[in-house]
Amino acid sequence: MVELKHDERLDYLLAEELRIIQSPSVFSFSLDAVLLARFASVSKSRGSIVDLCAGNGVVPLLMSARTSMPITGVEIQERLYDMAIRSVDYNKLQHQIHMVHDDLKQAPDFLGKEKHTLVTCNPPYFSTASKNEINPNEHFAIARHEIMCTLEDCIQSASRLLKQGGKAAFVHRPGRLLDIVTLMRAYRIEPKRIRFVYPKAGNKEANTVLVEGIKDGAPDLKILPPLFVYDEKGDYTEEVRTLLYGDEPPFLRS
Amino acid sequence: MVELKHDERLDYLLAEELRIIQSPSVFSFSLDAVLLARFASVSKSRGSIVDLCAGNGVVPLLMSARTSMPITGVEIQERLYDMAIRSVDYNKLQHQIHMVHDDLKQAPDFLGKEKHTLVTCNPPYFSTASKNEINPNEHFAIARHEIMCTLEDCIQSASRLLKQGGKAAFVHRPGRLLDIVTLMRAYRIEPKRIRFVYPKAGNKEANTVLVEGIKDGAPDLKILPPLFVYDEKGDYTEEVRTLLYGDEPPFLRS
Repeated sequence: MVELKHDERLDYLLAEELRIIQSPSVFSFSLDAVLLARFASVSKSRGSIVDLCAGNGVVPLLMSARTSMPITGVEIQERLYDMAIRSVDYNKLQHQIHMVHDDLKQAPDFLGKEKHTLVTCNPPYFSTASKNEINPNEHFAIARHEIMCTLEDCIQSASRLLKQGGKAAFVHRPGRLLDIVTLMRAYRIEPKRIRFVYPKAGNKEANTVLVEGIKDGAPDLKILPPLFVYDEKGDYTEEVRTLLYGDEPPFLRS
Repeated sequence: MVELKHDERLDYLLAEELRIIQSPSVFSFSLDAVLLARFASVSKSRGSIVDLCAGNGVVPLLMSARTSMPITGVEIQERLYDMAIRSVDYNKLQHQIHMVHDDLKQAPDFLGKEKHTLVTCNPPYFSTASKNEINPNEHFAIARHEIMCTLEDCIQSASRLLKQGGKAAFVHRPGRLLDIVTLMRAYRIEPKRIRFVYPKAGNKEANTVLVEGIKDGAPDLKILPPLFVYDEKGDYTEEVRTLLYGDEPPFLRS
């Protein structure tokens, strides 16, 4: 059993036969988080993973299906951290996923410097502009705006956590691409794989970018095939359906 | 009439009812040059265009169909410059296209600083590595390797030629994307539009990138829709056919 608070729901987490606690008034995971959890290069060998800006734990939960490495999620909002630990407990993943309620800027101090294999991060997308542009709901505001951490904080922390040859994967808006890659290089994470996500094929610009780099890696950037989210009928494309649900939707499974 | 030297041919230049002198042993234009000439933002208003690394003049010739602005092509190889001026003469475009046989690094001195509206450049793609990797044909070697100019030379020259608000468009390999955008920003050309070119839809990585920036522009990068060159049958896609031939192939025109 799991304790659900206020308007929380226990949602299915896609193909993984996992459940996740969400709340429409606090936080629900986005497609971007799913894409990040699928995009990051995960080896099955030894090592450890850190997910920064972990929110309700969607990325650690999804990654647990791809690897047996220990995964630590760092989330500064107590309300989201609380949802995440209850989801981890519900799925009986306490042996693999460890949630920490703290500031990602201090993560290298309490999780170890130059130690981890992979860092993932789905950071807040929006710079803090004028106050009235920011969502009055504090939970949404902190998740979406650079209030508690900037993009540079995330990338610097990722770099300090990673050992040489370790990988960092980020998802963001294409408008910040140049900032991301410039900051990655500044903090010794060489961008190696970029994938652009488009709402659909045709004349639409990309609205999401996935970037992965290697700490102290040699320059050799690949631009992966474009990912289209919707087809011409407005349904998810086959590739996105597979990323979301696996080879067959969970409701078709025995 | 036109004088053709050695193994030169007078080829059709695509949709524009133009002809261009090419030579299999010296220089033939690439699809990349065509894509660059189509990708660059050309207004029909006043201004002037400079094409660096102009080769046999393919970009100035194609651009002449899109604008009445004067276009100057700068080419350091005398043999290619000589082909270009004969093509300009053949097409009776001497009033619009002016070819200069000189080093692009000095272009701002002889073409004017902070003066031009648009600079295009299809630079050599390869760094000069060991000598035996370089094509023994000097014409190909100079066109393909950073022997006479580096990427930084091209971008610095473009920036010095451009007035504030002027645009620079480049075509290159995606592996150099980070160098291009970093150098563009270093020389005050803010990247605004990027388009990746893929050999075909599916699981292929991009093999070409088109980048345009604005001198002293504000950061606001758009990732344009992907461009696929070939369809699943190995024919040019409809979009590439249109870029190459216009709405109908020239042999169908009256």
